[in-house]
Amino acid sequence: MTEVPVNTENKNVGNEKRIHELDSLFKPKAIAIIGASSKELSIGNVILKNLVHYGYTGQIYPINPKEPEIRGIKAYPTIFDVPGDIDLAHIIIPSRFVPQMIEDCGKKGIKSVIINSAGFSEMGEEGMALQKEFLANAKKYGVRVFGPNCQGIINADPQYNAYCDFTFTFPKPGSISIVALSGGVGAFIMQSLFDLDIGMRLYASNGNACDVSISEVVDYYGNDDGTRAIILYTEGFHNPKEFMDVAKRVSKKKPILAMKAGRTEEGAKAAASHTGSLAGVDIATELIFEKTGILSFQNEEEMCQAAMAFSTQPLPKGNRVGIITNTGGPAVIATDELVSAGLQLPALSERAKEILKETMLPEASIGNPVDVVATGGGTHFRSALDVMMDEDDIDAVYINFVTAPFTDTNEVARNIVEVNKQKRKPMVCNFMTNMSLERFQETAKILRDGGVPCYSFPTTAAKALGALYKYHKMQSRNIGKEKDFNDVNKKEAGNILQLARNENREFLTSAQTYQLLAHYKIPFADWRIASDTEDAVKAAEVIGFPVVIKADSSSLIHKSDQGGVAINLNNADEVRSTVVRMKALFDAADLKFFIQKYLPGGRELIAGVSAKKDLGHLIMFGIGGIYVEVLKDVVFKIAPVTEVEADEMLASLKASKLLDGVRGEKGIDKQLVTDIILRVSQLVTDFPEIQEMDMNPIMAFGDNAFVVDARIKI
Amino acid sequence: MTEVPVNTENKNVGNEKRIHELDSLFKPKAIAIIGASSKELSIGNVILKNLVHYGYTGQIYPINPKEPEIRGIKAYPTIFDVPGDIDLAHIIIPSRFVPQMIEDCGKKGIKSVIINSAGFSEMGEEGMALQKEFLANAKKYGVRVFGPNCQGIINADPQYNAYCDFTFTFPKPGSISIVALSGGVGAFIMQSLFDLDIGMRLYASNGNACDVSISEVVDYYGNDDGTRAIILYTEGFHNPKEFMDVAKRVSKKKPILAMKAGRTEEGAKAAASHTGSLAGVDIATELIFEKTGILSFQNEEEMCQAAMAFSTQPLPKGNRVGIITNTGGPAVIATDELVSAGLQLPALSERAKEILKETMLPEASIGNPVDVVATGGGTHFRSALDVMMDEDDIDAVYINFVTAPFTDTNEVARNIVEVNKQKRKPMVCNFMTNMSLERFQETAKILRDGGVPCYSFPTTAAKALGALYKYHKMQSRNIGKEKDFNDVNKKEAGNILQLARNENREFLTSAQTYQLLAHYKIPFADWRIASDTEDAVKAAEVIGFPVVIKADSSSLIHKSDQGGVAINLNNADEVRSTVVRMKALFDAADLKFFIQKYLPGGRELIAGVSAKKDLGHLIMFGIGGIYVEVLKDVVFKIAPVTEVEADEMLASLKASKLLDGVRGEKGIDKQLVTDIILRVSQLVTDFPEIQEMDMNPIMAFGDNAFVVDARIKI
Repeated sequence: MTEVPVNTENKNVGNEKRIHELDSLFKPKAIAIIGASSKELSIGNVILKNLVHYGYTGQIYPINPKEPEIRGIKAYPTIFDVPGDIDLAHIIIPSRFVPQMIEDCGKKGIKSVIINSAGFSEMGEEGMALQKEFLANAKKYGVRVFGPNCQGIINADPQYNAYCDFTFTFPKPGSISIVALSGGVGAFIMQSLFDLDIGMRLYASNGNACDVSISEVVDYYGNDDGTRAIILYTEGFHNPKEFMDVAKRVSKKKPILAMKAGRTEEGAKAAASHTGSLAGVDIATELIFEKTGILSFQNEEEMCQAAMAFSTQPLPKGNRVGIITNTGGPAVIATDELVSAGLQLPALSERAKEILKETMLPEASIGNPVDVVATGGGTHFRSALDVMMDEDDIDAVYINFVTAPFTDTNEVARNIVEVNKQKRKPMVCNFMTNMSLERFQETAKILRDGGVPCYSFPTTAAKALGALYKYHKMQSRNIGKEKDFNDVNKKEAGNILQLARNENREFLTSAQTYQLLAHYKIPFADWRIASDTEDAVKAAEVIGFPVVIKADSSSLIHKSDQGGVAINLNNADEVRSTVVRMKALFDAADLKFFIQKYLPGGRELIAGVSAKKDLGHLIMFGIGGIYVEVLKDVVFKIAPVTEVEADEMLASLKASKLLDGVRGEKGIDKQLVTDIILRVSQLVTDFPEIQEMDMNPIMAFGDNAFVVDARIKI
Repeated sequence: MTEVPVNTENKNVGNEKRIHELDSLFKPKAIAIIGASSKELSIGNVILKNLVHYGYTGQIYPINPKEPEIRGIKAYPTIFDVPGDIDLAHIIIPSRFVPQMIEDCGKKGIKSVIINSAGFSEMGEEGMALQKEFLANAKKYGVRVFGPNCQGIINADPQYNAYCDFTFTFPKPGSISIVALSGGVGAFIMQSLFDLDIGMRLYASNGNACDVSISEVVDYYGNDDGTRAIILYTEGFHNPKEFMDVAKRVSKKKPILAMKAGRTEEGAKAAASHTGSLAGVDIATELIFEKTGILSFQNEEEMCQAAMAFSTQPLPKGNRVGIITNTGGPAVIATDELVSAGLQLPALSERAKEILKETMLPEASIGNPVDVVATGGGTHFRSALDVMMDEDDIDAVYINFVTAPFTDTNEVARNIVEVNKQKRKPMVCNFMTNMSLERFQETAKILRDGGVPCYSFPTTAAKALGALYKYHKMQSRNIGKEKDFNDVNKKEAGNILQLARNENREFLTSAQTYQLLAHYKIPFADWRIASDTEDAVKAAEVIGFPVVIKADSSSLIHKSDQGGVAINLNNADEVRSTVVRMKALFDAADLKFFIQKYLPGGRELIAGVSAKKDLGHLIMFGIGGIYVEVLKDVVFKIAPVTEVEADEMLASLKASKLLDGVRGEKGIDKQLVTDIILRVSQLVTDFPEIQEMDMNPIMAFGDNAFVVDARIKI
């Protein structure tokens, strides 16, 4: 099930009109089921059954040419026989009849349709033609289409109880909304929230997504006051720019927890085989998540567990956590995980310790963690909680609560809940108990009804708190705006690219390349072009020895592999013999010699750009030589990058310390390097026709940084 | 709760006598509860209640000086009043009475005691004295002591049903045995297996562990035919050598799944605060796990989930997995995780594809994954399963099974179970359903009763299969025996070390260091010692220019930081001026000049050794310079290392490709380097008094490798 945006109106998401349009999908007052069936276990029967079972508050109109009623509800032969207005229609009829049915829906004034039927774009040419046909009809009448080949939507708000889906989980109302490319994944996420006993608000799995896109749904959720957090599952985006625009806006208002599958080559292949289109390991999606402030998960269970904390807890204001425990080992495990997630365990203040010395049992351990010990009861937990809430240096609280058989566990739970209800700081609870015993079921109920997110393992609870903190950190991070250098000459740069296009070039010549860089004030090593031996010697003398010589011809791409590069030439003789050798080596009519100043020493860096369809450019940066070859030590961002992002690129390299200088080597001037990145970013953003740029190497020194070799593909 | 081995007999684990001794602990025929209490929620009451509730098959003798009966069971004033023999006694009386009680237990002929009472080594000097006192009494009578300050043991074998613990989880009999340093962690692991509806066999949490150690328990589990897999939780070992011996033996017979907490500095601190002794991040435990073939986990939930697969499934014979799914997205997620765990998804054979074309629904996707689609029923799953079992290129099967409402899910489950029962290849099942619906509860029961390990998330199921494969890989790995070089001169080496000790040296002199290396044929750069300028010139001329000169004095440790090293001296004058400069710099009576051949180029490596109390030596190896400084690219093993392990050390470096040569640089002769590691390993194993060795750098070339600088601490 793929998201293929065909309707160009999609791009215009976020306006008020569009949001109201989707109300007919998510808040329908009357639903027709076109293809309703009395056959048990058919989709047309299951959807009807689900609507009734879930207590749908609006009108249901089963449409069936033969049956007078289905499951006790009056049926109509056609939608035109339905007496009232219809907001939403399920369409569960063979695909070949769908275009006409959409036409009919338009005539009847139906605002949205969910096409559950399959047999469209996922089935090749013929299906695609049908899809285009019904979409044209939908557009004519302004009917919004959800699907085809999809599950549908659920609105768990008791005002609607709209279960427009054939799945089998009936969630209680809550504040988390789900949108999933894969219905299978959407369904088990919904089930997981159900198993965790937390509610859900809106659900959407839109299959082929020919009209209503995931981006549009996320936008809708963003504007839905009842949605506190959004869970998103995808295998990629067909219109990543649209998604970025929406996600940037929505993630400022509420957390988006997301998982993108297909992160391995094999996974991407599996995704392609079931979606028929999205293929290739796609690092762009993770970069989009990073750039737009979406919390990315690689483990769907962790994502659901984190959602539980997001649905009930305030966000921490920092990374300092206090642990309260009534058992030793689980606090050790929790500490390991919390610290790994970037949280800290500050020491308690003297004041806090004095209070705890008064209130705790003598065998308690007073510190962070506070171990109230297994025999500790409600008052002990309460005092420890109050102390943590009062500590200025604590931003969040982690609790281990084992239901020791010799304590009043309900009393402990009640005290935790009371403090939780104050909502002063977020808390998570690793609640270790036996839920098959009635006594502890009651304790669990007190905690859950009190909105305490309870987990069964210390690591799980700690990871959930780690996710809250990570979101806080993302929210506090202001990447700023991209820098707009006003000393660039966009017009001249455009002329060079136009010239290269006129010459039908795939790659710019060296001269064109360096001129283009010059117009964007991207520094590069001093250079001359020479066409013959003595020209080359003269050029080298003007530039000053030592020099490097590169053979330049449209037929030469990987010069250094072919012997077309010679470095550190110290005098006229060396230049002469090099040019003679290269002439013998390369029999090209347009052979020229590219002569540059050679500066030994310095740090070898690389940068690159590649264009991604419908997204823009990815910019890559790394430390050259063995670092990129052996350690793959590179980092990517989506252009345009801001100064903050460019700084992050340098800082997030594994070997970033090298840039500061180690073992007596001088560090580089990082500002000069980020400037290169920012200017390259502006260049490719100004000229989307640039497909690839390789700057390898960029040489960086303590007081200088410049591109030595560059290659530009258009 | 710490494991402090006091009884020296501990070290002698694994013999038949000791194993029989622990039968009185794990298979008691009569249990006395000394300190049994009629007070609800007291430990002395809870243990009695648990024994009765769990259906203990032997005799229970509550011991209480005042009560004639407790919970309806006849009580006795003292153990001497008990008419029959007693195998095991719980001791739940104040710590000060425990030494006398152990004496009494000895006199009564009780073979094992579980001391639940606290107030011993965990409480400082006074408690430690009490612990020593009762241990002496125990030794006198041959009473084995479990604890003190512990939970106890559980034997879930229906022949015993011995619930000698105050926890609250009552597992059904199974094949997984648990041993945990922390009772809190042990209890939630037991609960987790219970929640997963898989059985347990033996359980032990031994608190202070003053006598019966974790190693002894693991050894006992290893010899227990009913134990199929072992789960171990620890925060470190006090007698790591004992544990290694046991673990090596046991892990060959059955999988040990282990988790060691305190992997961060803060976690180790938390562990120290609750155990009072084990401190510092201890990489040795992970190395022990690696060396002895123990499956190490950093996430306790993953460990429990993996245990479910180990308890029911055969091991895979390789890493090739076939996926059967009835929904798309979860197969993508599973693929990502399986591939990340080192598994592969081979293409299906032509034969297999032909069969599937016949048997699958037309909309099914035939390949690996096989998507039988949501409407696929039992016959479709069955055919796909049979195909996977018959495929030569498939070692294990992963199943996604969503209970689509329009299929006979029980029929699907029955088919999965039938194939599972053939035990041809391991399988795991991500079973996506709503367990609150009766219909699907039945499906789940069929799967569980049929021994199919079912998970709620694709990643979780994939991780469990990954663990099975990892254990298979560990089992297939034969690290061999350490190499015993017979060309070493152990006697002369011993003499040098003796001399250094006689001289009260902490660090060997350069001459001693290089002589020691020479006796173990550890190659190093040609060298001479010179005491004055002209001596130095003569030495350099003998060695041949260029040379390196190092100032050598007992007061100089970090020579290069202090200007005591000069490299690449090309003639007599340079040697002369260097010696003069160093003489001015270092005003030491014993100042000498260490002159070595200087060989430029080559790869700079480092190796080191550090002694670990009660374990032996850790050997460290890495690539020198920035690699160790910036990238921390080093690897550790426990000495003695074998050839296989030495090879692994080179191969497991992040930048290991450098050793093969990159960017036109020549690679190094790895055999020469592993030889150095193996000879160092033999040296430190022969001389445990060596505390530290630093070999930095070792220079390696295409045809040569030698130590340039070394430092040895005794």
